Amino acid sequence: MTVVRCDQNPIIRPQDIRPSAPGMEVIGVFNAGVARCRGQVVLLVRVAERPTGGDPSVYLTPLYDAEADRIVVHAIPRKPEYDFSDPRVVRTPNRNYLTSISHLRVARSDDGIHFAVDPAPTISPATAYESYGIEDPRITQIGDTYYITYSAISEYGICTALISTDDFATFRRHGNIFHPDNKDVTIFPRAIDGIYYALHRPSCSHYGMPDIWIAESADLLRWGNHRRLIGTREGLWDGGRIGASAVPFEIEEGWLELYHGADPGNKYCVGALLLDKAKPWQVLARCERPIMSPEAACETEGFFGNVVFPCGALYEDGIVKLYYGASDTSIGYAEIALADIMATLVQTS
Amino acid sequence: MTVVRCDQNPIIRPQDIRPSAPGMEVIGVFNAGVARCRGQVVLLVRVAERPTGGDPSVYLTPLYDAEADRIVVHAIPRKPEYDFSDPRVVRTPNRNYLTSISHLRVARSDDGIHFAVDPAPTISPATAYESYGIEDPRITQIGDTYYITYSAISEYGICTALISTDDFATFRRHGNIFHPDNKDVTIFPRAIDGIYYALHRPSCSHYGMPDIWIAESADLLRWGNHRRLIGTREGLWDGGRIGASAVPFEIEEGWLELYHGADPGNKYCVGALLLDKAKPWQVLARCERPIMSPEAACETEGFFGNVVFPCGALYEDGIVKLYYGASDTSIGYAEIALADIMATLVQTS
Repeated sequence: MTVVRCDQNPIIRPQDIRPSAPGMEVIGVFNAGVARCRGQVVLLVRVAERPTGGDPSVYLTPLYDAEADRIVVHAIPRKPEYDFSDPRVVRTPNRNYLTSISHLRVARSDDGIHFAVDPAPTISPATAYESYGIEDPRITQIGDTYYITYSAISEYGICTALISTDDFATFRRHGNIFHPDNKDVTIFPRAIDGIYYALHRPSCSHYGMPDIWIAESADLLRWGNHRRLIGTREGLWDGGRIGASAVPFEIEEGWLELYHGADPGNKYCVGALLLDKAKPWQVLARCERPIMSPEAACETEGFFGNVVFPCGALYEDGIVKLYYGASDTSIGYAEIALADIMATLVQTS
Repeated sequence: MTVVRCDQNPIIRPQDIRPSAPGMEVIGVFNAGVARCRGQVVLLVRVAERPTGGDPSVYLTPLYDAEADRIVVHAIPRKPEYDFSDPRVVRTPNRNYLTSISHLRVARSDDGIHFAVDPAPTISPATAYESYGIEDPRITQIGDTYYITYSAISEYGICTALISTDDFATFRRHGNIFHPDNKDVTIFPRAIDGIYYALHRPSCSHYGMPDIWIAESADLLRWGNHRRLIGTREGLWDGGRIGASAVPFEIEEGWLELYHGADPGNKYCVGALLLDKAKPWQVLARCERPIMSPEAACETEGFFGNVVFPCGALYEDGIVKLYYGASDTSIGYAEIALADIMATLVQTS
């Protein structure tokens, strides 16, 4: 497997991003959806911010207040019964809080490497379902419209919501298309026999592991016929958790999905999955080894180290062009030949 | 509040039900959906069974094996790290198991009190999503068709699936309409401005409490625009968990939903909720006190005591006719005047 990382990685870093307001600092720009739009490469990047300064005896978590339509900072006392071990989350007996709040920004590039990032948030939390922020967008182009799924996080759980745009300048909100808890939703780029499909990752609270499922829709807004597609594999690199990453793209052999998998130690790698072209709920093949693992310094170190996490890829001229979050901190770019990915696939019995 | 319980309660008991196979015993018949069909009252009752006998050093849990298309009995060793405290569930570090497996049977009655129950299962687990059983049906009549939602439980989580029938003799399966974890799905009995609605109860694993949500659909198969309707109320009778119970029915003032609520001690009562007729995602009023609580012996004692749990109600001539599970053991019948229910409602600010 030859992964050609860009020698300018990370191509977008936190210091490239202007904070959304005084008193906030950008701690990460990562997990970007990607699309081609009018010749340019457009990224929709996730920007994570946290409040600056503050009293060391409390932990500051930012929350969007939908009624007041502004960010408020919530102070959590550092009680011994609270769990601060994960830098991303404060766990209390009744509820979890995120240590940062994310919004989305458009970044545009002519060469796919050098990006101009919007100086202010492009899409911000705007509803009560987004009080903990909006995260991890995926972009699916269908005709001239771009459909953006993203995680909407709040005290009501993790929903997946849908926004559409024709130009990445004006956006239409379509509400929550998947109820909590569900994330890592990627919509296929065309209908198959008149039906749209999406991969999704519900979280089962009591009985199961987080698996990748597939759903179908006639209108992209309402989804049903939920079927489980693949699960985690104990003892392998994706034995801890999995989820769809890039939007599936069509190749001769079927639909290729680049998904993320983590081991129980939270090392996030990228894997590949081949689905039947006419019946995408049928898995034809799956990689046993990851196609990409955290290796470069920006991938092994950062806010949450040992993570490569693509939310999007362009497939052009036999090359898969991956835009990926590195350690929940920055955005990297890498190219992998499709043939190399296909060579990792093992036929599913 | 005057709840007129049937003096023949419980009207259906486990000993009225023939086991589905040798080696199984019926431990509960409860949580029944209800409909009027060709003049009769039809119940779709949940029948819970467990394997008889066995080695006391192991705990026997029944599972449906979809590949072999039969029930297999799984022996769980009584390890000290496993939690057997809830009679309904065995909790192990990696997975929960149910102590019984449920199927559904049709019961018919001319007077609504005396029922003839099918001697064999009417609807049995039939897919990999139903390996732990099928539970808690709700029946919505739309035109001449009856739509039945039920919980499909397996190692993949708790889905809600849909089956339809015109006669309760032949049934059409429509797959999982809500992904895991989701239960307590009740479909409204008519479209509103061309859109169908359903109440549902997703389980949030990390961030929220189990709340009642509302979703919309054009075809009853695919659902979207998920919005949170109401939550639990700390310190009140419904402070532990809530979920829709009966199928909402139309009254002059709007849609009346009889829901279940439990306190943290797992005492399950019935409450009422009034939704706007044209905008059912708007809550007009909610009861502060339950309209019905476990009081009779069959409601306070049983397999899981202190539970009244309706999955269905008929609203006829100003009277709400409740068919309810009593202590996860038997089925009770009670009548409540609509006016009494309305008097409990407190307008939502």
